[in-house]
Amino acid sequence: MAYERNNIEAMSAYVPGEQIATPGIIKLNTNENPYPPSPSVNLALEGCDVGRLRQYPPPTAGSLQAAIAQKHGLASDNVIVTNGGDELLRMAIATFVETDETIAVARPTYTLYQVLADAYGCGMTSFELDGNWDLPENYSSLLNDAGAKLTFLVNPHAPSGTLTSFASISALADEFNGVLLLDEAYIDFVDPDLAYLSEQLVRDHDNVLILRTFSKGYSLAGLRMAYGLGSETLISPLMKTKDSYNTDLISQTLAKASIEDQDYARDTWAKVREERARVTAALRQSGFVVPDSQSNFILATVPTGKSAETLYLELKSQGILVRYFKNEKRLEDKLRITIGTPEQNQRLLDALTATG
Amino acid sequence: MAYERNNIEAMSAYVPGEQIATPGIIKLNTNENPYPPSPSVNLALEGCDVGRLRQYPPPTAGSLQAAIAQKHGLASDNVIVTNGGDELLRMAIATFVETDETIAVARPTYTLYQVLADAYGCGMTSFELDGNWDLPENYSSLLNDAGAKLTFLVNPHAPSGTLTSFASISALADEFNGVLLLDEAYIDFVDPDLAYLSEQLVRDHDNVLILRTFSKGYSLAGLRMAYGLGSETLISPLMKTKDSYNTDLISQTLAKASIEDQDYARDTWAKVREERARVTAALRQSGFVVPDSQSNFILATVPTGKSAETLYLELKSQGILVRYFKNEKRLEDKLRITIGTPEQNQRLLDALTATG
Repeated sequence: MAYERNNIEAMSAYVPGEQIATPGIIKLNTNENPYPPSPSVNLALEGCDVGRLRQYPPPTAGSLQAAIAQKHGLASDNVIVTNGGDELLRMAIATFVETDETIAVARPTYTLYQVLADAYGCGMTSFELDGNWDLPENYSSLLNDAGAKLTFLVNPHAPSGTLTSFASISALADEFNGVLLLDEAYIDFVDPDLAYLSEQLVRDHDNVLILRTFSKGYSLAGLRMAYGLGSETLISPLMKTKDSYNTDLISQTLAKASIEDQDYARDTWAKVREERARVTAALRQSGFVVPDSQSNFILATVPTGKSAETLYLELKSQGILVRYFKNEKRLEDKLRITIGTPEQNQRLLDALTATG
Repeated sequence: MAYERNNIEAMSAYVPGEQIATPGIIKLNTNENPYPPSPSVNLALEGCDVGRLRQYPPPTAGSLQAAIAQKHGLASDNVIVTNGGDELLRMAIATFVETDETIAVARPTYTLYQVLADAYGCGMTSFELDGNWDLPENYSSLLNDAGAKLTFLVNPHAPSGTLTSFASISALADEFNGVLLLDEAYIDFVDPDLAYLSEQLVRDHDNVLILRTFSKGYSLAGLRMAYGLGSETLISPLMKTKDSYNTDLISQTLAKASIEDQDYARDTWAKVREERARVTAALRQSGFVVPDSQSNFILATVPTGKSAETLYLELKSQGILVRYFKNEKRLEDKLRITIGTPEQNQRLLDALTATG
């Protein structure tokens, strides 16, 4: 006998990117940072006292919460610390959307959003991004007309890597009646000259909820730490619905050490940006179409006459993993490639030339 | 403007037990294990490589999952690893109950269940435990008649510490139409002679979901690690609805080290049982009424003519924290006291005698 709700029986689980432990493999498929975490994280780990694990951790990760607030020039009341970004995404749905209401997205986007909607049992309305991966015209009206209570917008966009400007986001937040969740998982890799100001969005709009993660910019995907930034109007109900002790003491400690070492983090971001420019240029030279990415990955349309799936398999056979989206019509001629270290990127470029 | 669902606007958040960092304070209020984690946990922490945090952790904590399965003589498919017990409790509601359906409990019980029901927006039907903290007569019929899809039963019971027998649980599982979630947070402290066999419950009943935690028995409350045991019928849908990477690499590693050191853990459990007997006897001698506890805490009814709240405050002023349930009518003349080390317990007993 089945006990689960019908929507859960019917749904498919999220499929994580391949994690292969083969030594020497080059993993450019799950958008991890190619550089290790800050040396401060190592020191913080060495300073951890196992004896303190006997007791419950600070329920809201107060000390980390304050460090995050300080980095962003916001108050602690504007910050919620979560067990990875997934937790904030799921909580946003459960907090702001009834099961008979709908969320909305512009596709293609992060496939987890659909899985979360399916698991919760609410509706999911979707629109198409235009040919340049830009939001549809009059997107706010489309969202409002659909009655969307919540929309997810990953910025920089995945899987294209393109950035929606501060001005466009700001206008959307003004016009949209629901909660605008900006999934800024990759924001640390944006060129600082573009003056994309997340904090200003939080100050200006009580309906903007920003997701930040330690997974990419701080090289801590294994730690499952992320946070939300938003007005008290949004953070306060989320605090009521989060698990009572949602993050552990060691993760709180290590995340704090990493966010307090901005110099180290900024250096890795700059190196990724530099390599992003080099890989983009080299691939374009070889006939790939690659939009300008502001993320730590690029989306490459393979040259006419080649199959993206074949290329993906050929790279895999050479020990280089990239991401191929088998079931997305619009992505079937494309590969999403994480920016690695200069050596890894060179191996990739050499392989793409050799198979070309 | 408020954006959250009405039920969330109306609800109150869970209030965690007081965590006071004052040096020298004796914390007997949140049922933590008085002994530190196993030395193996220390070694495991020292062996953690921060560089590995760069990548995502195993999504189902496969290696820990296998160690748990082995300890219980079950298969990995019978095990789901969760970010603390809270996560499993919340997921059980979201997986097995529609928002227009109801869960049910016998009160008094863990106050978080009501908070989780409120946050999800489903109904909560409640019955009263009898004078001996036993389940009501014909409890399964009461649950079935109420249409309960899920019931939470904390065993040993909190806050009384009493154990419902294997035979009673087994009969309830047979008769109840929904999912019986046994919250076995304190099961490690049960006298082994009582032959309470959790694994047999899982083998015999496809509707039994057991919650186990590393917080109490393994002294790792700060780590937020727990797990569910159940038939594939229950575990498989939970796997679909859990956050995609719900536990981090360090916590997985440390939890595995602790569960593999059963000798150490069993030794702490035996010491707690010994002290539990001593504290119970001493309090009874001083006029407190204390039911036989199979947990790492006791529930003491203060002698007639004394106020439990006053006693709680007096103890607090002497640096000894116990739990007083201000808003529960049936508990207003009682204190819940965690069993500490022999020295801590002696301090408590001395203080209770001095104020008596």
